[in-house]
Amino acid sequence: MTCETGGGCVMTDQAEVFDVIVIGAGPVGLNAAARAVRGGLTAAVIEERLAGGECEYYACIPSKALLWPMALAAEVNRMPGLELRGPIDTAAVLARRDETVSHLDDSHNVSWVKNLPATFVRGHGRLAGPRRVEVTAPDGGSRGLRARHAVVVATGSDPAIPDVPGLQQARPWTNREATEVQQVPKRLVAIGGGPVACEMSQALHSLGALATTVLVREDRLLARTEPFAGEMLVKSFQDNGIDVRLNRSAVRVERPVPGGPVTVHTDDGAQVDADGLQAEVVDDSMRATGIPDGWLYAVGDANGRNLLTHMGKYQARVCGDVIAARAKGLPDDAPGMRDTADGRGAPQVIFTEPQVCMVGRTESQARADGFPIRAVEYDIGTVAGAEVRGVGYTGRAKLVVDEDRRVLLGATFVAPDIDDLLHSATIAVNAEVPLDQLWHAVPPFPTVSEVWLRLLEEYGL
Amino acid sequence: MTCETGGGCVMTDQAEVFDVIVIGAGPVGLNAAARAVRGGLTAAVIEERLAGGECEYYACIPSKALLWPMALAAEVNRMPGLELRGPIDTAAVLARRDETVSHLDDSHNVSWVKNLPATFVRGHGRLAGPRRVEVTAPDGGSRGLRARHAVVVATGSDPAIPDVPGLQQARPWTNREATEVQQVPKRLVAIGGGPVACEMSQALHSLGALATTVLVREDRLLARTEPFAGEMLVKSFQDNGIDVRLNRSAVRVERPVPGGPVTVHTDDGAQVDADGLQAEVVDDSMRATGIPDGWLYAVGDANGRNLLTHMGKYQARVCGDVIAARAKGLPDDAPGMRDTADGRGAPQVIFTEPQVCMVGRTESQARADGFPIRAVEYDIGTVAGAEVRGVGYTGRAKLVVDEDRRVLLGATFVAPDIDDLLHSATIAVNAEVPLDQLWHAVPPFPTVSEVWLRLLEEYGL
Repeated sequence: MTCETGGGCVMTDQAEVFDVIVIGAGPVGLNAAARAVRGGLTAAVIEERLAGGECEYYACIPSKALLWPMALAAEVNRMPGLELRGPIDTAAVLARRDETVSHLDDSHNVSWVKNLPATFVRGHGRLAGPRRVEVTAPDGGSRGLRARHAVVVATGSDPAIPDVPGLQQARPWTNREATEVQQVPKRLVAIGGGPVACEMSQALHSLGALATTVLVREDRLLARTEPFAGEMLVKSFQDNGIDVRLNRSAVRVERPVPGGPVTVHTDDGAQVDADGLQAEVVDDSMRATGIPDGWLYAVGDANGRNLLTHMGKYQARVCGDVIAARAKGLPDDAPGMRDTADGRGAPQVIFTEPQVCMVGRTESQARADGFPIRAVEYDIGTVAGAEVRGVGYTGRAKLVVDEDRRVLLGATFVAPDIDDLLHSATIAVNAEVPLDQLWHAVPPFPTVSEVWLRLLEEYGL
Repeated sequence: MTCETGGGCVMTDQAEVFDVIVIGAGPVGLNAAARAVRGGLTAAVIEERLAGGECEYYACIPSKALLWPMALAAEVNRMPGLELRGPIDTAAVLARRDETVSHLDDSHNVSWVKNLPATFVRGHGRLAGPRRVEVTAPDGGSRGLRARHAVVVATGSDPAIPDVPGLQQARPWTNREATEVQQVPKRLVAIGGGPVACEMSQALHSLGALATTVLVREDRLLARTEPFAGEMLVKSFQDNGIDVRLNRSAVRVERPVPGGPVTVHTDDGAQVDADGLQAEVVDDSMRATGIPDGWLYAVGDANGRNLLTHMGKYQARVCGDVIAARAKGLPDDAPGMRDTADGRGAPQVIFTEPQVCMVGRTESQARADGFPIRAVEYDIGTVAGAEVRGVGYTGRAKLVVDEDRRVLLGATFVAPDIDDLLHSATIAVNAEVPLDQLWHAVPPFPTVSEVWLRLLEEYGL
């Protein structure tokens, strides 16, 4: 066993030994460690920043704490008999946001690791040779760890700022600064129309960024979703007073004083002045390079398969189980030990108003992948379960059917407060439930779920 | 062919002839007619009262129009940053309720029947011999109809008032009067703890019946659900100031002046005074007697299989398809032509706060039916998707697993705003999706759906 050279590589026999070493204590790393420990192995988890990861402190959780009040206010506005006393109390929402991120204190997660039981190591971990990891502690000291069976890289991804002249220097907000917001800018300009830009523009608009402009290169928001989803969202943004500029790119950004007013010049010669600047960042995922002797695993954003927290956690469960099985010489091909969901049906919810929820393939993806498909759509707002939710509840649903096998390849639901309906489609897509069996799953009346019945009727059942 | 004698039986050759005659134009009858017509048959639909039925005008729809404002107000109260201007505006809610029941105008449903196309006949229909139906019109005239293939009885059920001395004379509200309410009584007493009593007591309490008392014979509300469901609902009622009296029966009811104050005496010698009286009614379903030569079908409440609108509609789809297939001499055993869901997994949502949603068998039902089961539960309030919904979102979920086949026999979810999650379980139960496949259906983060992951982990996956 030779040590790959590298600064500070520790190769003494005093290295602490664990069955598994996990680099990164985000939700993904934590799941990998937990499953390996559950399988009877010892584990160490290394984290440089906050245990719990980006998702808990700077992404999924705080963004939803900022978004749900907006969604609920919209529901109240659709419901005769209820009226809000005034606009959303931004300070109260930010205080609640702080609670949901535990005021950036990660001790509960550190305790959780210790209770697995596993060893928590605070510091920067790096591969220092086969099965070797070196950890540089916050105080600069270093510590060598050795893995008997596996090293799991779950280091997440870093935001990369798009290449627009002046943008980097203007220090735009990424998801991190946007979810951490303390003072909501009155005028906000957002560059990009992806999930983070959509969620955070709308949340900040609801919390006081009354003059919000969104610049989108494509002809709709959320260009990777079914076209109607992005189009419905454009309408919602416009109805709420957000200035959406489609087919527009930023060509130059000026921010003479750091943190001061910013000017974004667009490709039609116009300019947008704002106090805050947000940019949809490109996920810069680090792909783990294949190592031939099978001790290195990469999960979550670090492998680039699917940049979604829940899919990273899913991969981590698969990974932890496989490592434990192999370490004990047990079969590693049990049903839970293969990642089938990334290919078949990863679900995603974008918590805008309306929500955009999808799983599996869009129609165009399915066609591009060569499936013989038929798609059906239905207007969610017309089902009885929607009508009792208030006045003006609108939405749309779509199923993509593999005509050869009569199973679902994908589903999209766009409507308010519909995130929990998605799991029905996630089960149908991933378990490949035949349409003829879905027909016997009767949606209760009167719920929004009844759109399932209408979609299957549209299909011809 | 002999005519069964009966008053006014029309046996002339002038009887109008249809392939199928459907008695009852509730949602069930309408579905049966629609499927038969879609299968190429001609149909007549007979309705004495409002086309659209009890569900649309006096049950499912108006009750939900009265309940959703309460649920939404509770959501707002849990959400920091939002505040309601005052209590629910009862007049506005009642006005909206009137809209949802189309101000008791059924012309849209009559048009819908005509557009199938089918013939709508207003009047009281009764069987008048094999394949013969006699209709008495509102003006007293009668009309004879003859069915070439089938007569479908979809006449619903009538409320039956429990046998308590004085109760019948006190004219208690059933679902019909409660959902039609114009003036909410300040003091309400409800007898019974079933779905309708729970929904309407809570709705009327939220709309101004501040002094509401519920008398329940059992030790919890909703005695047919998982025990924790009824117990959580008792707590919710009490937290909201409803006086729930468990293990108490009404022994005598006095209402000296019709529509005036009412006094209910209970079996512990106490009495409750109120302005309004509601009673959970016993469904008095008319079972169709079997007719040997196969021309008579009964669907919905009329067959007593499952007294839920959506299950009646489901039976109607099966029935309409079977009639059409048999009429044409086609196979009648296609996958959609058997009612498998009534036995396997009928879903039900009770729209209280919190909602009680269930499908398939409860743990005790599954045990009674002889299945080798294991049940797992999880606290919904602790999943991340619940925490971002506000402060104090609590709930509980339970899965009942058939250990031999590792499939779900039932599921219960009790939590606010969780009705649309139920369809995931309805698919899993009815399609008998193996647990090992459910494991690959990843719930999106952070949603309440993540309780699925926790439940499967609890089970040991």
